[in-house]
Amino acid sequence: MYNISGDYMKKILYQEVYQSIKTKITHQVYKFNHKLSSIRQYAKQSGYSTTTIERAYEQLLIEGYIYSLPRSGFYVAKIDQLHPSDVNQKVEAYTFNYFQNNQFTHDLFDIKQYKSIVNKVFNYEKDALYTELDIRGEEILREEIKKYVLKEREIEVDKDQIIIGPGIQYLLHILINITTSKKVTYLKPAFEKAMSIFQSYNYERIPCKDIGEITKKKTHFIYLSPSNIYPSGEVLKIQDRTTIINYANDSDAYIIEDDYNFLFKYHTSVIPSMYSIDQYDRVIYLGSFSKTLLPSSRISFMILPPKLYAMFLQKITLFSQGVSKLEQYSLAYFMKEGLFYRHTKKLLSLYKLKNETIIKALNIYKEKGQYELSSNDSNMHVVIHFKDKIQFEHMMTKLTRLKLGYYRIPDTKDILFPYSGLELKNIPDLVKKLFS
Amino acid sequence: MYNISGDYMKKILYQEVYQSIKTKITHQVYKFNHKLSSIRQYAKQSGYSTTTIERAYEQLLIEGYIYSLPRSGFYVAKIDQLHPSDVNQKVEAYTFNYFQNNQFTHDLFDIKQYKSIVNKVFNYEKDALYTELDIRGEEILREEIKKYVLKEREIEVDKDQIIIGPGIQYLLHILINITTSKKVTYLKPAFEKAMSIFQSYNYERIPCKDIGEITKKKTHFIYLSPSNIYPSGEVLKIQDRTTIINYANDSDAYIIEDDYNFLFKYHTSVIPSMYSIDQYDRVIYLGSFSKTLLPSSRISFMILPPKLYAMFLQKITLFSQGVSKLEQYSLAYFMKEGLFYRHTKKLLSLYKLKNETIIKALNIYKEKGQYELSSNDSNMHVVIHFKDKIQFEHMMTKLTRLKLGYYRIPDTKDILFPYSGLELKNIPDLVKKLFS
Repeated sequence: MYNISGDYMKKILYQEVYQSIKTKITHQVYKFNHKLSSIRQYAKQSGYSTTTIERAYEQLLIEGYIYSLPRSGFYVAKIDQLHPSDVNQKVEAYTFNYFQNNQFTHDLFDIKQYKSIVNKVFNYEKDALYTELDIRGEEILREEIKKYVLKEREIEVDKDQIIIGPGIQYLLHILINITTSKKVTYLKPAFEKAMSIFQSYNYERIPCKDIGEITKKKTHFIYLSPSNIYPSGEVLKIQDRTTIINYANDSDAYIIEDDYNFLFKYHTSVIPSMYSIDQYDRVIYLGSFSKTLLPSSRISFMILPPKLYAMFLQKITLFSQGVSKLEQYSLAYFMKEGLFYRHTKKLLSLYKLKNETIIKALNIYKEKGQYELSSNDSNMHVVIHFKDKIQFEHMMTKLTRLKLGYYRIPDTKDILFPYSGLELKNIPDLVKKLFS
Repeated sequence: MYNISGDYMKKILYQEVYQSIKTKITHQVYKFNHKLSSIRQYAKQSGYSTTTIERAYEQLLIEGYIYSLPRSGFYVAKIDQLHPSDVNQKVEAYTFNYFQNNQFTHDLFDIKQYKSIVNKVFNYEKDALYTELDIRGEEILREEIKKYVLKEREIEVDKDQIIIGPGIQYLLHILINITTSKKVTYLKPAFEKAMSIFQSYNYERIPCKDIGEITKKKTHFIYLSPSNIYPSGEVLKIQDRTTIINYANDSDAYIIEDDYNFLFKYHTSVIPSMYSIDQYDRVIYLGSFSKTLLPSSRISFMILPPKLYAMFLQKITLFSQGVSKLEQYSLAYFMKEGLFYRHTKKLLSLYKLKNETIIKALNIYKEKGQYELSSNDSNMHVVIHFKDKIQFEHMMTKLTRLKLGYYRIPDTKDILFPYSGLELKNIPDLVKKLFS
């Protein structure tokens, strides 16, 4: 249908000529002001067609290797040499480590079902795939997220207030760019991936020990996870919630509610969102599908209060959408068909099993290990507090040797240990291996 | 297999109790220090089981609505009211406009082929999909990009120097965060999406008219598109290239080579990349698949010189990968099987046809319209320079009325008009409608 091969052959021929002349110029066989043969002469001598030579000369002209004088011909242009150099360093090798305990076991996600959803999108949404991305995220997905936050978080919003992005870092980048704040307070310890964004914008980052301390600092942003305080999984009580909302309203501040893992409460109900309590449009909501969808995908969303949304619209052309439509539509279909809801219910019960198994196993060695546990009834990790420094360090060595991932909480003897990627049946033996 | 429904019923029951008490507290039917019935009493009165009541009380305790006194019972806690408020603004409606001429026509991408690639990834790369993303991008894709830039751009790099991201904005964000620069020079007019990132980091952005002017400013970053100067499609000549590389080397600056649309040269060969000429590791290369893959996906990459790559590694944990593995593996398979190469060849010939058709049609009305054309032999847009302000403004009105997208180049009477989404057969009539 398309005549590629003919064009292609011509291209190869003229590139031969072009390359040969260019090499002679860069190696100074042809020096500055050297006159090239005329197109006709060159063709005659070489056996190439005049068109071929003409195209080669033209390319050399465009790139600046030669110049032409009317009714005279083509000459080699003046080209500075690059200074001699001894650079060209080697690249440091770096291997990205996957720790098995940090991933998903196969029972946590039905990939066959998801595959059929993706195929549905290919079949039914073809036209949409040929057009560009809505900067805010696709309407079909924003509509589903709107229903989702209403059902699960009692958050009532317009679908237009929802902005989709490839991870909360990018969403925070948007937030920072539509406001003029330069300060953020947060509860210790910091959620580092989020704080690093504020750091990169030279924010003053003020760690606080409790809500009382936050209300004493003058900031514009308050970064919190009210339903799941990091990393303990504790809950911000209603007294603190009303205090901080009133404070935000009085001092023109915004609360950034990072609602990570809100779904994974094993012994209590899901805790209401801060956004749903707020009456003053003072809460910015951050949600993520990181722990409910496969760890190999990253879709997050941000809900802006109307005033901030209007500010976002003024600058919308500065941003771009990073989540492909295939991903967005697939998630929207997954939600729309009720499959996501069923999936999260199943996920919750599987995690609950893993959680109970690991807590039970850890409790056996508790006395011996001189540790205490927290975050035991939420999240996909436990936090192990060691009393003894030597035991604490010994445990980190052991984990590293067993190729298990962990996170050391700064300024503490606490180890955050994820377990989503461990097979249920292997948990007791593994814990035994770690502590005996 | 999972006992969801039993748990679920129990949850509904205790939430009824929880909700009913909570409502009484928030509406001050139960005031501060009000004593609740004991668990046993409440169960007896209500007919619910004691376990149900116990769970409801526990949830209220966790959220802070009630407190308990040992051997006494449960009491309503002190809760501040939220101040009265008249906020709750309405959200401004906003419709994202798709301009047809800015999209892809269906002949430009074989979506059936791509669908079968995606299915292959689901079948063969299942295990990979269950594990987290490599922050830099997946090795399989970096390997293919390495081969691609070697073949098409004569760039020889280690696959580890390649970083993948959802758009060049995110990649520039990384670059900005691993360096300490605060200044960037560029050739006028600015490529706004890129400059907006520098703006958001408070960079001093210095527009220059030519390379000579750039070498007179002291900056650390020089943002250029040497093979396709925006928006004219002109080429940075070899003299300017060596000048700027020597300048960068002498003054410890880096050239950011935004190599957009390098493939789409209709009458000349592809222009060599700056990266391939540089001997001093002074060029940062930015590449993108935005105009070769569907406009509904966004995958870009950045090649860092070894020194900057080492700096990136030191801060790697601050970043995250936004392109899902499904997308990354699909593109890698697409490239690996040679389909991407064939696709781009076909794309080039289709664009060439569209380009020739629109230029031919525009040339007919050139006299009448008092305009000149540039960017006629590259890119997926033409730039129309109007001599007359009234004609220029009239054209913008007409384009808007016909729901066609365009970009007005600041401080000029130039209109950038994209044509990738126009059907070939409609082009002559459309141009006639615009200019007669």
